[in-house]
Amino acid sequence: MTAYDDLMAFERQTQALGQVAGRLGWDQETVMPRGAGAQRAEETEALEHVLHQRRTDPRVGDWLGAIEADKLDAVGQANLRHIRRRYERTQRVPITLAGEIARVTSSAQGIWAEARANNDFKAFQPVLEKVVALKQAEAQALADGGDAYDALLDDYEPGATAAELQAMFDALRPRLVALRDRIMGADHQPAPLMGSFAEPAQMKLTREIARAFGYDMAHGRIDKAVHPFSSGSGLDVRITTRTSPADPFGSIYSTVHEVGHACYEQNIDRDYLLTPLGAGVSMGVHESQSRIFENQLGRSRAFTGWLYTKMAEVFGPLSTPDADAFYGAVNRVTPGYIRTESDEVQYNLHVLLRFDLERDMIAGRLAVADLEEAWNTRFERDFGVAVDLPSNGCLQDVHWSVGLFGYFPTYSLGNVYAGCLMQALRDAMPEVDSHLAKGEPGKVTAWLADNLQRHGGLYEPREVITRACGRKAPSEAPLLDYLEAKFGEIYKL
Amino acid sequence: MTAYDDLMAFERQTQALGQVAGRLGWDQETVMPRGAGAQRAEETEALEHVLHQRRTDPRVGDWLGAIEADKLDAVGQANLRHIRRRYERTQRVPITLAGEIARVTSSAQGIWAEARANNDFKAFQPVLEKVVALKQAEAQALADGGDAYDALLDDYEPGATAAELQAMFDALRPRLVALRDRIMGADHQPAPLMGSFAEPAQMKLTREIARAFGYDMAHGRIDKAVHPFSSGSGLDVRITTRTSPADPFGSIYSTVHEVGHACYEQNIDRDYLLTPLGAGVSMGVHESQSRIFENQLGRSRAFTGWLYTKMAEVFGPLSTPDADAFYGAVNRVTPGYIRTESDEVQYNLHVLLRFDLERDMIAGRLAVADLEEAWNTRFERDFGVAVDLPSNGCLQDVHWSVGLFGYFPTYSLGNVYAGCLMQALRDAMPEVDSHLAKGEPGKVTAWLADNLQRHGGLYEPREVITRACGRKAPSEAPLLDYLEAKFGEIYKL
Repeated sequence: MTAYDDLMAFERQTQALGQVAGRLGWDQETVMPRGAGAQRAEETEALEHVLHQRRTDPRVGDWLGAIEADKLDAVGQANLRHIRRRYERTQRVPITLAGEIARVTSSAQGIWAEARANNDFKAFQPVLEKVVALKQAEAQALADGGDAYDALLDDYEPGATAAELQAMFDALRPRLVALRDRIMGADHQPAPLMGSFAEPAQMKLTREIARAFGYDMAHGRIDKAVHPFSSGSGLDVRITTRTSPADPFGSIYSTVHEVGHACYEQNIDRDYLLTPLGAGVSMGVHESQSRIFENQLGRSRAFTGWLYTKMAEVFGPLSTPDADAFYGAVNRVTPGYIRTESDEVQYNLHVLLRFDLERDMIAGRLAVADLEEAWNTRFERDFGVAVDLPSNGCLQDVHWSVGLFGYFPTYSLGNVYAGCLMQALRDAMPEVDSHLAKGEPGKVTAWLADNLQRHGGLYEPREVITRACGRKAPSEAPLLDYLEAKFGEIYKL
Repeated sequence: MTAYDDLMAFERQTQALGQVAGRLGWDQETVMPRGAGAQRAEETEALEHVLHQRRTDPRVGDWLGAIEADKLDAVGQANLRHIRRRYERTQRVPITLAGEIARVTSSAQGIWAEARANNDFKAFQPVLEKVVALKQAEAQALADGGDAYDALLDDYEPGATAAELQAMFDALRPRLVALRDRIMGADHQPAPLMGSFAEPAQMKLTREIARAFGYDMAHGRIDKAVHPFSSGSGLDVRITTRTSPADPFGSIYSTVHEVGHACYEQNIDRDYLLTPLGAGVSMGVHESQSRIFENQLGRSRAFTGWLYTKMAEVFGPLSTPDADAFYGAVNRVTPGYIRTESDEVQYNLHVLLRFDLERDMIAGRLAVADLEEAWNTRFERDFGVAVDLPSNGCLQDVHWSVGLFGYFPTYSLGNVYAGCLMQALRDAMPEVDSHLAKGEPGKVTAWLADNLQRHGGLYEPREVITRACGRKAPSEAPLLDYLEAKFGEIYKL
């Protein structure tokens, strides 16, 4: 056994335990008895304790020091890169600081939930101030002299920098604001789909659509949960959905979104199972998969044409008179405060707002005391509407309460990547729309499996995107062109 | 922090991780995607590795050495007793032997399953010889000069000895054989319940019955699985069942059995949560709870009277003309080879056969090569029928293939304990039958919760039974008296 073999054997068990932790989370959100919460909290904490010990185990440092990296093949070097990055990050953060962050964010989430319920930002402010101060300290420790925000971002999007994202987002924002304005002012406004849709039939349809997009039910399952999510890697990747009688699109498109995440995990080369390469490489690349499944493919004119016929078969005649009207209903853009309920056009504006505000907070340019006002000012500027309540404004997302700074921009980066990938996909597969129109999106997503998903963590995030895009550097332009063309047509701009 | 506090903090995390392992097992048998098995095996192994490391952690030995036991209260001393016993057992078995047992039994189970499917004992014999030799070695190591079989038994029934069980079983066997013979020769033979029973209605009824027996759905859930089982301790105790259209009793009584196990776990004093006292104290005591729920209560004339009316409401008129005939159908005794399908009268004969054979194997008095013949000879003597196939004989149970020697007798010990407890229960609560006849068995099982279940691991197994039984020493007599009276009446002997 070489040091590399020892390290990988140890890592494999750590990965397996990480999967167990994910499975516990799935259990908690789907099947756990309602009175089991207190015990589950201890179970989860015990497992996290084991995982933390393994990730900071000094033997990992010894092995990393003993390995001759240049004797490893590309896979070995990629494994080493992942393990080294994680290990060095854990080493840089003092254990007292890590413990304090865990302690404070754990209580902050409850305080945030209550503050949101009471529409009372002042009740959240003190604990958010603590969280921000702790994340600033963590960022300083991680940055080791470099940019503090970049150090946090690196947890979710290794290798990305705020400056590079800022350049993309600066190009996105004016064209999105302009497109949004033109849509809101358009004479033609598509009608929504009306009616009541039986939930068991929705679940059956949703399962059929999940399979059609390529989701492998032998290595996954679909359950109901309050929030849709995807959980697990490798041979066991589960998703959840929710249904509402008045809104069948909620179930369908949240499922297609999660199927995008899940297919990415399911399609990674099986040789990488339970290694650092055996999971999606970053949040941005993950989101590119969920978004391209959901939007560029799922909300396309071609696929919604098939879906229109299918839903009429399942539910009887629909309120939308034809497939074009149905396409409009799927893609309606309406004013709204909530990011998670947003459409393709406005979604990134929500994210860009958060990206700017959180960078300012971490840099110390924006005091938490001024967050609410800064949010409301920016929201009105970009969306043309004044925020009515904190729960519709800066209290809407859980992220900051649990210390997720540097996470938000990966949502928009994923959208940008999805735009690039769709352009490459159309170049490589001119018959995309004919597959989608036949209700066979799996023939399209197979291209993503072959050209991107199978690599898992082999390449750096940006590298895996440029490889799939024929070595073209990622740019926001394809996404903007796509949105302007699509919504220009729907809204007859 | 004293050494005791340190030990208990460490133990609490170990207990929590043990619960996680149990949850993984539940997941595997109920909801796991069919293609996830290979990954799950690694996840389970990684978690077992962590648990093994913690159970053999030298710090446990240090803490045990530093604690002044006489300064602890009764709860503290009981905790110490459990932890010390487990730690000393792990210390006695050389690590290479423990590893070899794990390796061989892991492959033996598959070989057994195939041999059973092919009715080929010779195919199983070589690996069973290895298992027996390894268990002999383990028993020698554990016994430390004492009785080898007792050392194995101690894993499942701490404090019990084969000699003491033998005395009980020697008194059981002749009266059970005689009762069986008289039943088989009786003129009056109850007719079975005939018909087809919709499975969703069975599941609904089964859930209602589970609740009526006291199962707390806020801390549990019922799912379908190939084999019924109970899983977990404390705030999350789940059970499974199975249904068959022709046999509603299969679902009902396997559920009541598992509810007995589950209520024991649910009703343990919450102060013992995630400590060694927070789980059922032994297999025998556990089985006494499942058996008294299933048989003495569930198959009683009083409860089946209520069930007869209930089932007629749910399923329409039944083939049994009245409640007495229904009671006969529930308690029919028919010839059969399979332990798990057996009735109250014959069940213990199945167990006694295995107890004698496995003691002989561990003692080296019976060679594995002679097991099949020994089994068949004994079976014909006790049951009056010749074994037709190995799958109906010595290949029917999984236990020996996975190294469970010393486990079988706890089934009959549980039945003996159930007999004692039922006698004590009837003395303490003369209105037992009136509760059962009203479909309110929970009012009866509450006595078990108060007098036995709540203690968890506080007392030694035998002590917890004698306390519940008004300090009367356990004896097989109440069970025999109960069986002879009950079946004498049903079969008009």
